Amino acid sequence: MKTKYDPLAGVQAAGPPGSISFVYGLPDPETFPLRELHAAFEFVLKEKGELALQYGPNQGYGPLIDYLRERIRREEGQVLERPQIMLSGGASQALDHCCSLFARSGDSIIVEAPSYHESLMLFKNHGLSACAIPVDEDGMNTKLLEVRLNDLRVRGIKPSFIYTIPTYQNPSGITLSGKRRKALLKIANERDVLIIEDDVYCDLAYEDTKIPTLFSLDEEKRVIRFGSFSKIIAPGLRLGWIMGPEKMIRSLIRSGLRSMGGGANPLSAIAMAAYCQKGLLEPHIVSLKQVYKERRDVLLAALESTMPTGVSWTKPAGGFFVWITLPPGRKSEDVKQAAKVKKIFFLAGDPFFAEQPSAQHLRLAFSYVPPDKIQEGIKKLAAIL
Amino acid sequence: MKTKYDPLAGVQAAGPPGSISFVYGLPDPETFPLRELHAAFEFVLKEKGELALQYGPNQGYGPLIDYLRERIRREEGQVLERPQIMLSGGASQALDHCCSLFARSGDSIIVEAPSYHESLMLFKNHGLSACAIPVDEDGMNTKLLEVRLNDLRVRGIKPSFIYTIPTYQNPSGITLSGKRRKALLKIANERDVLIIEDDVYCDLAYEDTKIPTLFSLDEEKRVIRFGSFSKIIAPGLRLGWIMGPEKMIRSLIRSGLRSMGGGANPLSAIAMAAYCQKGLLEPHIVSLKQVYKERRDVLLAALESTMPTGVSWTKPAGGFFVWITLPPGRKSEDVKQAAKVKKIFFLAGDPFFAEQPSAQHLRLAFSYVPPDKIQEGIKKLAAIL
Repeated sequence: MKTKYDPLAGVQAAGPPGSISFVYGLPDPETFPLRELHAAFEFVLKEKGELALQYGPNQGYGPLIDYLRERIRREEGQVLERPQIMLSGGASQALDHCCSLFARSGDSIIVEAPSYHESLMLFKNHGLSACAIPVDEDGMNTKLLEVRLNDLRVRGIKPSFIYTIPTYQNPSGITLSGKRRKALLKIANERDVLIIEDDVYCDLAYEDTKIPTLFSLDEEKRVIRFGSFSKIIAPGLRLGWIMGPEKMIRSLIRSGLRSMGGGANPLSAIAMAAYCQKGLLEPHIVSLKQVYKERRDVLLAALESTMPTGVSWTKPAGGFFVWITLPPGRKSEDVKQAAKVKKIFFLAGDPFFAEQPSAQHLRLAFSYVPPDKIQEGIKKLAAIL
Repeated sequence: MKTKYDPLAGVQAAGPPGSISFVYGLPDPETFPLRELHAAFEFVLKEKGELALQYGPNQGYGPLIDYLRERIRREEGQVLERPQIMLSGGASQALDHCCSLFARSGDSIIVEAPSYHESLMLFKNHGLSACAIPVDEDGMNTKLLEVRLNDLRVRGIKPSFIYTIPTYQNPSGITLSGKRRKALLKIANERDVLIIEDDVYCDLAYEDTKIPTLFSLDEEKRVIRFGSFSKIIAPGLRLGWIMGPEKMIRSLIRSGLRSMGGGANPLSAIAMAAYCQKGLLEPHIVSLKQVYKERRDVLLAALESTMPTGVSWTKPAGGFFVWITLPPGRKSEDVKQAAKVKKIFFLAGDPFFAEQPSAQHLRLAFSYVPPDKIQEGIKKLAAIL
């Protein structure tokens, strides 16, 4: 496996033979509901082919939007009007649209430190300047956020938006606490700043605690929330959704029309509507949670039983990632190179920092690795440390 | 049919009962190869499900890229290296990526007058300032382009790119002549400006004449060319491609990675590879050309036999559109309203102009209208004029 990412080679999740790769936060293809998806696509191509193969409405396929609204109402108790939700080609495309619509090259934005590295690269592509607010065990530190916003204000700068992954964050696995959520909204309200809540892991919850979304707590129409079928069904569908205040969603639909050429993936959307309307999504998520919870538990137990003193790690209540902090003096890049020799792969933490990189973190993605390989990989990593 | 476009309602191509709509440049769903696509998707979901449903390589599915390279070599005699082509979610998404990567908010760009209105809106969304160069019967007037570039240079402005639809243009149906193509490239070379060649209609050729693409004539690695399956198979696949100099394509792949979340539509791409590798695309395009050539011929004959003196129109050698010029004194918006009463629908020309709108043009899209309805619609339109 190349250390340097080669865009032409793309994702090579498994690595060379004999290796164990914690690199990519990919869903395990063994979990894909192939038979049910096959049936859904067969139905769509047979019964709704002309609709599925034509340009779709810019908001996305109506029945799938209605299914998502009903699901939010049922599971989160929130009532959404139809113009408050649209389909997207996944959360990355949603974020790309929001950057085009709600920011201009040269603008400042607020992100977490660490944050999802692909989002940070997207912000860079849009010419946005990211101010990174440290994350602790309760998520983004809202006290430090206020300090930073004050600093910016003194310089005449108002950020275009706050980008947060509040639940089972990529890369840290950390969840923003309920108290911090309220604090974050209060700050955003006082300063009149938009919040983008990237929430693609929320359904992969391994504990019973449920914290309300920023979107559901928002009283001032300033939160946009992303969801996605990539983690809960399959990334290849290229399908997600955006929820938010009606006015913003209408603007995004208009802008999406231009950049998507008319509606997010009608074929996938109509197939997913058929799949979801059969009641297949809910039991599938239950089975996914079993698979990934086991991997998380195995990983945390392996870390507990093997890691030397001075190494610490997060205990994610959901999602795909555990974030390791090395003891002082150990550099993540050195550890990565040493692990590579033993055919153990993961990402060093630096690309997840928009400002000062920390040389002391590793991201382990456990979603793609079978439990026995997790144990073997962590044992080898511990031996290096 | 609403006059004002409602983004939540989306495309309503057919209009109310009894109406004839020349509004949308949609492929006729009767042409969709439903049985063959069904077979292709069935094969993919059965045999390659885990690949098709996972994140794909950022360049797009390799075998489809290789098929497209082979097709370009066979049909246009041009040899492309693999890193010179990538897949996209259609030409609009390709253009969106290019705007993000090759321009910055506030930049100037060059477009044609008229040009595709959705592209013009996309440029506006990106904060780009479009300078519109008039199109005559040979395409963009390169003399006027030089004058305009001189004006800009005096003001210290160098445009980020020239956006052109040189072949069977939307909305005019006009094709840039061979001589003008060379002139355009010469100007771009002298001024060191990038050219974006939006070429999604090129396969729908109704005459034998074939003019080399700007991309094939380019000797200085400054032309990026878009293609799409939307017009030649089905828009719902959300799949197209981008060709260009290796360095630019590599940059686009990296930037696309962020905004697409990993590879254009793997499911559609693998299905299209299966479809194309069976040799199904070429005969399908032959049959499409018959369908659409007939509609063009019927439309041109109807215009010829019914339109009063003073009305003129383009004679497209391919594509989906005929562009009407009204006699002095007639306003396109008035004609549109009068036609609406008779349930005849089309677009007035104004949204196709980035700068001074002309109130004297109508765009007729003939791709979606059966021949007998074309005759009926034009007869009614002529009566109004």
